[in-house]
Amino acid sequence: MDISFTTAQISEIVKPISTRGSTTLPVRGIASLGEAQAGDLTFLGNPKYKPEVAATAASVVLLPADYDGEPKPDQLFIIVNNPSVAIAQLCARVEQLLWPKPAPGIHPSAIIEPGACVAASASIGPLCVIESGAVIGERSHIEAQCFVGRNARIGDDCWIKAGARIASECELRNRVRLQSNVVVGSDGFGYELVAGRHEKVPQVGNVVIHDDVEIGAGATIDRARFSRTEIGEGTKIDNLVQIAHNVIIGKHCLVCAQTGVSGSTVLEDYVVLAGQVGLGGHIRVGKGAVLTAQAGAAGDVPAGAKLKGTPGTPYMLEQRINILRQRLPELFQRVSDLEKQFKKSASA
Amino acid sequence: MDISFTTAQISEIVKPISTRGSTTLPVRGIASLGEAQAGDLTFLGNPKYKPEVAATAASVVLLPADYDGEPKPDQLFIIVNNPSVAIAQLCARVEQLLWPKPAPGIHPSAIIEPGACVAASASIGPLCVIESGAVIGERSHIEAQCFVGRNARIGDDCWIKAGARIASECELRNRVRLQSNVVVGSDGFGYELVAGRHEKVPQVGNVVIHDDVEIGAGATIDRARFSRTEIGEGTKIDNLVQIAHNVIIGKHCLVCAQTGVSGSTVLEDYVVLAGQVGLGGHIRVGKGAVLTAQAGAAGDVPAGAKLKGTPGTPYMLEQRINILRQRLPELFQRVSDLEKQFKKSASA
Amino acid sequence: MDISFTTAQISEIVKPISTRGSTTLPVRGIASLGEAQAGDLTFLGNPKYKPEVAATAASVVLLPADYDGEPKPDQLFIIVNNPSVAIAQLCARVEQLLWPKPAPGIHPSAIIEPGACVAASASIGPLCVIESGAVIGERSHIEAQCFVGRNARIGDDCWIKAGARIASECELRNRVRLQSNVVVGSDGFGYELVAGRHEKVPQVGNVVIHDDVEIGAGATIDRARFSRTEIGEGTKIDNLVQIAHNVIIGKHCLVCAQTGVSGSTVLEDYVVLAGQVGLGGHIRVGKGAVLTAQAGAAGDVPAGAKLKGTPGTPYMLEQRINILRQRLPELFQRVSDLEKQFKKSASA
Repeated sequence: MDISFTTAQISEIVKPISTRGSTTLPVRGIASLGEAQAGDLTFLGNPKYKPEVAATAASVVLLPADYDGEPKPDQLFIIVNNPSVAIAQLCARVEQLLWPKPAPGIHPSAIIEPGACVAASASIGPLCVIESGAVIGERSHIEAQCFVGRNARIGDDCWIKAGARIASECELRNRVRLQSNVVVGSDGFGYELVAGRHEKVPQVGNVVIHDDVEIGAGATIDRARFSRTEIGEGTKIDNLVQIAHNVIIGKHCLVCAQTGVSGSTVLEDYVVLAGQVGLGGHIRVGKGAVLTAQAGAAGDVPAGAKLKGTPGTPYMLEQRINILRQRLPELFQRVSDLEKQFKKSASA
Repeated sequence: MDISFTTAQISEIVKPISTRGSTTLPVRGIASLGEAQAGDLTFLGNPKYKPEVAATAASVVLLPADYDGEPKPDQLFIIVNNPSVAIAQLCARVEQLLWPKPAPGIHPSAIIEPGACVAASASIGPLCVIESGAVIGERSHIEAQCFVGRNARIGDDCWIKAGARIASECELRNRVRLQSNVVVGSDGFGYELVAGRHEKVPQVGNVVIHDDVEIGAGATIDRARFSRTEIGEGTKIDNLVQIAHNVIIGKHCLVCAQTGVSGSTVLEDYVVLAGQVGLGGHIRVGKGAVLTAQAGAAGDVPAGAKLKGTPGTPYMLEQRINILRQRLPELFQRVSDLEKQFKKSASA
Repeated sequence: MDISFTTAQISEIVKPISTRGSTTLPVRGIASLGEAQAGDLTFLGNPKYKPEVAATAASVVLLPADYDGEPKPDQLFIIVNNPSVAIAQLCARVEQLLWPKPAPGIHPSAIIEPGACVAASASIGPLCVIESGAVIGERSHIEAQCFVGRNARIGDDCWIKAGARIASECELRNRVRLQSNVVVGSDGFGYELVAGRHEKVPQVGNVVIHDDVEIGAGATIDRARFSRTEIGEGTKIDNLVQIAHNVIIGKHCLVCAQTGVSGSTVLEDYVVLAGQVGLGGHIRVGKGAVLTAQAGAAGDVPAGAKLKGTPGTPYMLEQRINILRQRLPELFQRVSDLEKQFKKSASA
């Protein structure tokens, strides 16, 4: 990462309320309070790190309005409304510098089958395959070695990273981001046992991914048995997640890494599934429900519930159980003692 | 998905026992009872949805012989022996329409190394790499951007989807299906700690995948340390499953998404592992055993067992424990009460 | 696998202390004691398999100095200091035969962007994409269809298997091995909820992978939000593992299949995470700590701890709890009995 911002450039991006002190160094890196060195910019995003501000070696520190300390020599404090938002704005600028929008056009090594339709403003990387009937929308950026199957549709301003596979008939709306090696539209896992053999149930539906969805590296989204598997607007899915056939995910959900959602399950809006969660098939998870890491649920989850453990249990109760289960040896002992005492007293 | 079936075409596929009513609309989609619209076909696959038949808007409904309701105007009931089988037959026809067998031949952008042998009836997609000594059997269909390593052998009528990797020396028998981004023949995870460093134990065996196996998107099957990792005939493996080195899986097993099987473990025939199951190494899972979702087993599992939880526990017992553990706070209280009462009575 | 070793060649590789008996067959395979056939070599790596030596059909058996049995006719015993080390040496020779170092050079179908720098001794496979500013070190072997993004740096003697993706700005030091379809440098999973929508926090750091690291098929290593995600020297990571942004992994750790490590967590040296382990974010796992399969930890783990279960619990205690929880039905019954008895005695 090779960046360099003057303090004037930073002020232009983060629009400070005020500043204290000054530095002569350009900013060449971004780091946490504890790790930052001279030439780095850092920020106070969480009040619990307040004590670290005085000790940081960073040249520039983004701080909230209520921070009342003073900078060291050759150090600049920039006071902003929300340091977390300010750092995101700066990172967005760095992102543009690191990954500038490629020039529109189709790399000569890409295979565009006759009947595919690529917008003139789109960019298709080397060694991509775009099959017949596929559509690539305005300004979408398809990196190297991606696959877009027959009749698949990719909307505007999408960013598809190297090696992603979008199978035939699937649809991505606008501003969808796929990380590398995502698979959209693999066959659902459906078989009927006939005479001792698992006969395949053909999976002839598709996948529809709505606006502003992001999907993490290596995640797999199965096509529907029929009709569609659907990922709602603004939902974010992390790496190595498995979404089975005919799952319907609502808007603005978060699905963390290595979680699996079984077939035909429905997530309403704003559901949060932490890492390694497992959901059974044909269940409904209500709006805003949260399942913590490694939780499992085989039945419906009410809106707003916060579940922990397998089977998913109300959070506070599961916390309590987790403490009490560690005391099981003691409890068995206490019951044995009672039994002995009772026996003794009964025979007395 | 752009399909259109006349009711005559549907009858030809599903061979009805009888029909009731009629519709003028061609069938343009397949959907569940609740979601179907005019122009859709639906079916009653599970008796519990019987009440939904009367309300469905579908134009065509596949029903079992014992269903005694009457169709609405412009609605056709088709009575069949098994509606689930009938829908699978229809979907199979849709599948053929959506993904017609490609013409035999090798795409000019594919790299076929000298010494590779591709059957004249096979189809090799764009940007595939087939290394020297590899063999591709009759009518096998290798989609875009796949890799088939040196001396790997793929049998007849296989279907390998975009981006799958079959490493050198590995073998797929006939009618094997790999979904996108499957890896067959990655190195097993084997190291010896020598003087504080993990020295690699070379993995020089291969993987053998028998007839009629299907493997889900992003799944990984490690090559053996020596000899082979083996997936038995008719077994179906779901997305993001990990099969370690020297595992032997029997015939007609089902391994659901995100499950992991550790090295040298043996699954006998007809084993079912639900999603996110974890099996330790060097164990044997007996014929027809079932492990439910997120279960774990570190020791042998008897044939026919049904285990739940970690450590894997007989299903009914684990169900009982799961209820009782939620009552641990109450149990601790009851024991405390007993202790107090006993103390009081003893001192009385 | 098509190998053939004379007994003289084997002796040259394993440097025997002594031999007993002889065989006329060349060695054409390696197998376990129980599976080996005439023409195979086998070994006694674990004393518990000693009784199997007398029954093995192998033509050559590697044995420790303290083994005192005699070979059968046409069977050769080779006595070595450590049969496990000897078999690894032999497998290493087989590995060289199966996968000889490719000739240096760039396959004509690879896309090397202007400004990329590939060492003359490196080998770049067909249909690779090496973007501008990327550097490939001496003797590194990049197999088919890999992606190396802008300014990414790969050191000397690395082996990158088919379909791996190394995103821009990431760095691999020397002798790093990536299995197929690994993703290095996918975006971290970071969002801020702003007005009901998850706004992306740009991920502008990179990934640094130190010397002698190996990463398994389909594993994903996210780039840092800023600064870097780091995998320490000699650490080995198995298939389908997820390493989140800003994770720092120490030296010589083992991370088994399907384990997930959340953002900003630190693993000190020699940590072992078994399969399907889940670690929360922003925690520290001390040197040499071990988490057994499917364990979970949301808080710091002390150096040298051995934890089992979720929440991670000291190993021996968790073993005890696992036995006692299966006796919960009995315990509830015993408490009920006590209550009844006490009631009866109190009213007596």
